[in-house]
Amino acid sequence: MTEIVCLNGQFMPATEAKVSIFDRGLTFGDSIYDCCPVVAGHLINWHLNRARIQRSLNEISLYVQDRFWAELDQQVTELIKLNELVEGYVYLQVTRGVGERVFTYDANMTPSVILSISRTSIVKRGDDYRGIAVCSVEDLRWGRRDIKTTQLLYPVMAKMEAKSKQCQEAWLVSRGMVTEGASTNAYIVQRDGTIVTRPVSREILSGCTRDALLSLCKSRDLNVDERAFSLEEALAAREAFITSAIHFVTPVTAIDGHKVGDGTIGSFTAELHEAFLQSIGC
Amino acid sequence: MTEIVCLNGQFMPATEAKVSIFDRGLTFGDSIYDCCPVVAGHLINWHLNRARIQRSLNEISLYVQDRFWAELDQQVTELIKLNELVEGYVYLQVTRGVGERVFTYDANMTPSVILSISRTSIVKRGDDYRGIAVCSVEDLRWGRRDIKTTQLLYPVMAKMEAKSKQCQEAWLVSRGMVTEGASTNAYIVQRDGTIVTRPVSREILSGCTRDALLSLCKSRDLNVDERAFSLEEALAAREAFITSAIHFVTPVTAIDGHKVGDGTIGSFTAELHEAFLQSIGC
Repeated sequence: MTEIVCLNGQFMPATEAKVSIFDRGLTFGDSIYDCCPVVAGHLINWHLNRARIQRSLNEISLYVQDRFWAELDQQVTELIKLNELVEGYVYLQVTRGVGERVFTYDANMTPSVILSISRTSIVKRGDDYRGIAVCSVEDLRWGRRDIKTTQLLYPVMAKMEAKSKQCQEAWLVSRGMVTEGASTNAYIVQRDGTIVTRPVSREILSGCTRDALLSLCKSRDLNVDERAFSLEEALAAREAFITSAIHFVTPVTAIDGHKVGDGTIGSFTAELHEAFLQSIGC
Repeated sequence: MTEIVCLNGQFMPATEAKVSIFDRGLTFGDSIYDCCPVVAGHLINWHLNRARIQRSLNEISLYVQDRFWAELDQQVTELIKLNELVEGYVYLQVTRGVGERVFTYDANMTPSVILSISRTSIVKRGDDYRGIAVCSVEDLRWGRRDIKTTQLLYPVMAKMEAKSKQCQEAWLVSRGMVTEGASTNAYIVQRDGTIVTRPVSREILSGCTRDALLSLCKSRDLNVDERAFSLEEALAAREAFITSAIHFVTPVTAIDGHKVGDGTIGSFTAELHEAFLQSIGC
């Protein structure tokens, strides 16, 4: 946290960046966020994040000025430079802004715009990974998981439960069907090699890495079945994996203490991981 | 917002009170809040709020130090004095604290504690009210509405929908049954005078005004049926009303554009309102 951040267009040390206690992001969870991976100093698929940011803002009726987008591009680029960020991600949060604590808001409020970075191994992590363990947790989130809001307390609780069980991620389950991971998308590979993942709806977040991976699968004529899958199916699957901005394609080798396949990284997942890295020029 | 607030034990002008952009209340909605009404300069049923704050903290595993409670009592009293608050409410927010933006947290984090006040007419408002109009909105909130967290974006969206329909509150409906209002508890009065309101569960917040009112009803031998009621029942009810820290007992005279009863304040609701005011010494 000794990094440089950008708060409402001003670059400053992270320790100095503060918002009012009346910021609606703090008082009402009235804010959206996004994370874009950075590898070798370059943003990965920034256009996908940009489109998702726009969608999230629209869905909560948080309207930004036209110049917001050009400024955002400049600020993100400058932030990576100032921090000499090689690998990690850029974090963006946009709140409704500062105002009296009443539920309803005026349309002309000035949003708070926060940009920061995180240094995290993404590419190397993939090489090192022996596969992660996940546990299933009941999905109690709200009905608009397609919007990337900062109302993340339930994912926090699920991740804490996973941690207490020596797992690295929680798979959220609703009526027996896996929706997604607490901060990742979830996939299984069937015996016949078909990749199964839940289709985009209000039940899950449309991951940018998910989008990019499914495009890649299409270009390689891989079979993808976008449908909900059950926890039982996952336990019987040949392979399983997750994707996210900081996980890219990461194998899941155990679910609720049971091995997936033979409990090692599957060949399919390993190939997808390699192909994904190639597709982004790594 | 030119009031005095109390941030982490320090009293200061509201305009100077700021938290880090890395406060988990802002980044993860990892925080709880509460509002206690103030009438004639006195806290109303503060012990109920205190118990609820403790419950909310426990439910999200946010542990405060033993001295927190004594300090809170002192600070709340001091805040009312410093602001010369006569009528309104005290707002408390406790967040997990400031830390690196990762989902999992360390148990030894230092919580951020925010106290502020709001000047609002509560008692007079009741006298003036001709009854409010509510509209029904699908309840899409998460599965732990019993915890008073700051993840309030959906109530915000519901209130904005209500406002657009010239309504003062939204009644949230799940599978045809009313859960509660966006920031209030919901009640109907049947033809036989029985008061019906949803029982406490994970589906609704256990309102302090609700608790106090139900105790009052019990002491007066009024019939209360704690069960879920449908939107259809509400439309056919003799009377309807809401309760909250700032609404006390407020009549609902229209639901989705249809009159409740004859569309005026019902005698039952008016009596309950008077009895409630008496019970708190007004």
